[in-house]
Amino acid sequence: MPTERIHATYWLETGDDPERAAEIIAGEQSSGTFVALPNETPELKARAGARVERLERLDTAPVPSLPTPVRATRYTRCVLELSWPIGNLGACLPTLMATVAGNLFELRAVTGLRITDLQLPRAFTDAYPGPAFGVDGTRRLSGVTHGPMIGTIIKPSVGLSVDETAEQVEALVAGGIDFIKDDELQADGPACPFDERARAVMRVVNEAADRSGRKAMVAFNLTGDLDQMRRRHDLVLELGGSCVMVCLNSVGLVGLHELRRHAQLPIHAHRAGWGYLSRSPALGWDYAPWQKIWRLAGADHLHVNGLANKFSEPDDSVIAAARAVLAPISAAAPMIAMPVFSSGQTGLQAHDTFAALGSADLIHTAGGGIFGHPGGVSAGVTAMRAAWDAAMAGVSLAAHSKAVPELGAALGFWK
Amino acid sequence: MPTERIHATYWLETGDDPERAAEIIAGEQSSGTFVALPNETPELKARAGARVERLERLDTAPVPSLPTPVRATRYTRCVLELSWPIGNLGACLPTLMATVAGNLFELRAVTGLRITDLQLPRAFTDAYPGPAFGVDGTRRLSGVTHGPMIGTIIKPSVGLSVDETAEQVEALVAGGIDFIKDDELQADGPACPFDERARAVMRVVNEAADRSGRKAMVAFNLTGDLDQMRRRHDLVLELGGSCVMVCLNSVGLVGLHELRRHAQLPIHAHRAGWGYLSRSPALGWDYAPWQKIWRLAGADHLHVNGLANKFSEPDDSVIAAARAVLAPISAAAPMIAMPVFSSGQTGLQAHDTFAALGSADLIHTAGGGIFGHPGGVSAGVTAMRAAWDAAMAGVSLAAHSKAVPELGAALGFWK
Repeated sequence: MPTERIHATYWLETGDDPERAAEIIAGEQSSGTFVALPNETPELKARAGARVERLERLDTAPVPSLPTPVRATRYTRCVLELSWPIGNLGACLPTLMATVAGNLFELRAVTGLRITDLQLPRAFTDAYPGPAFGVDGTRRLSGVTHGPMIGTIIKPSVGLSVDETAEQVEALVAGGIDFIKDDELQADGPACPFDERARAVMRVVNEAADRSGRKAMVAFNLTGDLDQMRRRHDLVLELGGSCVMVCLNSVGLVGLHELRRHAQLPIHAHRAGWGYLSRSPALGWDYAPWQKIWRLAGADHLHVNGLANKFSEPDDSVIAAARAVLAPISAAAPMIAMPVFSSGQTGLQAHDTFAALGSADLIHTAGGGIFGHPGGVSAGVTAMRAAWDAAMAGVSLAAHSKAVPELGAALGFWK
Repeated sequence: MPTERIHATYWLETGDDPERAAEIIAGEQSSGTFVALPNETPELKARAGARVERLERLDTAPVPSLPTPVRATRYTRCVLELSWPIGNLGACLPTLMATVAGNLFELRAVTGLRITDLQLPRAFTDAYPGPAFGVDGTRRLSGVTHGPMIGTIIKPSVGLSVDETAEQVEALVAGGIDFIKDDELQADGPACPFDERARAVMRVVNEAADRSGRKAMVAFNLTGDLDQMRRRHDLVLELGGSCVMVCLNSVGLVGLHELRRHAQLPIHAHRAGWGYLSRSPALGWDYAPWQKIWRLAGADHLHVNGLANKFSEPDDSVIAAARAVLAPISAAAPMIAMPVFSSGQTGLQAHDTFAALGSADLIHTAGGGIFGHPGGVSAGVTAMRAAWDAAMAGVSLAAHSKAVPELGAALGFWK
């Protein structure tokens, strides 16, 4: 029997005694029940019970973060670390989900619970493939050998016909863009069917590649049922495409895992729905433990929002997410994926993003920051790349704009 | 091009003007972007845009429910109904998820957003199978022709060996129980492997069925990767089993859909993790829209917690969830599943549950309420059934206990 343990860390708020709340959570997620049972012996508990590894009190609050029928005079916030014997579940990601994030958020003793970290024994990196391409494979396929991949998203998200989509892609690839993605709303609707879109887009991408010698990477959103995803992947591959995209919360772990088993292209993983998993600070998931599960199952690129974004997420959360995606799962099996920055991005975020990460192994997507350039898409892409060159060289945008006029022109409208 | 529309309703809180917030949400989830684009023409918006169908102000609050970088003097709560043309996405459940529950919860204009209802055009019931067994198929396989199925969960959840599990099942089936399920933590861990457990359990279930002529339904938790789930299903079928169980949030939509395509047995669907989707009243999912998606994909039984449960969920929420599971998706394609009541349940909940639902097409699981009976498991099962007989006949428990002494004895310890 393997003896390694799975460790999960939580931010916990409770109106109960924190030690008791921790034991309730550990019990509920392993051998315990609400009613003590005669066959829950000390030997069984020692063998199969979850263990409270750490409980640190942080502060207290006068009101509960989440509604509860049990009132208390104050609610204590803690860091709680639990561990489980892998013998309970084996190296199974779906059952890991039910174990570390199952029926515990709704416990009465809990008025706030958020999973903040997950450490897995080696059995998981042995059992799951991780990203097939990651940073190196993506760079190889895209021909972007250093610096970030400069990307964009087809806009409007939905509503363009197949031909209009291809026209937009044509302008982008003529402008030298590295990466283009479908919106998560655009998969295979009757108004812009996947197959026709993929054929029309890859025709212009391939024609441009024949001229320039470098092929833009297009992430086609193949989100759907399993057979559909496999068939769409095969079409993209046959057309000479180099990336597929999938919405993780839409297809689930089995969907990603099966796509990974089938795919011969990098998997661009979209986190649509992340807000309902994370926006309450007292509930749900931090990105670090969440993205680890999807990387094990095979995600090559993972969305992390962007600095100074148009959503409600603060910058420190964005950077923590991106660092998590770039952190090795283990030294023996790093399984590193590429973070994807998006939402209101321009070259103005290059310096801060690079400084915070110490890496340019990322995809930086901009919409208005590229299309709005007075010199057109090509100048917009050049300006984004120049901003990153400046950031990586430790030169200011203003100084570098003397050498790259497109950057100077961009500084006039980026804001 | 089909002209039907998908409708989703939300509870929305915003510090912005509600009309503007509604338009931002509609735009973000269809053709809009943060920056107005020249190619987002009025014609395109009319064709592909999401539409605000209804906006009703409810009340205001002085502080936001969820953190936001945009401060306001008050936060307005509304009912918001949006609709989308099905031409944008087609009848695709995964892309429906990204559309009605994608990148909208994290919008700055939103300080609370919860999806409360989902109405789908017929294309969805045409495209998806729904439950293969539902109420009728489950009753046929279990031999329980009327009244609820009386069930229980193997406890402790994890830690029992294969033989100990089979011994517990033996006592339960000897006591005449209708339904037994694995815990969601118990799938295929090395300490109690699935195959050995299924063989040992089905041996005692089949032996009891040979004697009694009626076979207890056991929901074996086959949650795992797709090939594992298919193989485990086939083993259960081969052993004469009559139900399989899966954790929905663990395997995702593709996991359930593929299992449904493969399965020849009812799918008992566990909602482990539901708390992180629902416990903040200002965020996430109501059960009504959520369960509809999983029913379309093939869930036969769906967990709804129970009245007077040991978790934090109030009774009205439990009843709303159960009613949703029993409500037809459409008159032409009802796709009704069986609600599963659990958590601190005894016969004391029978009257209120039946009164609220007007139906006994459900599974009622009790642990201590059966095992704790002084007359043993058999008396516990008899008492549970008698409580339901009384509820359905409109007779009080006290009155009915005169005819059923096991019920009288149960009333002494149920609380």
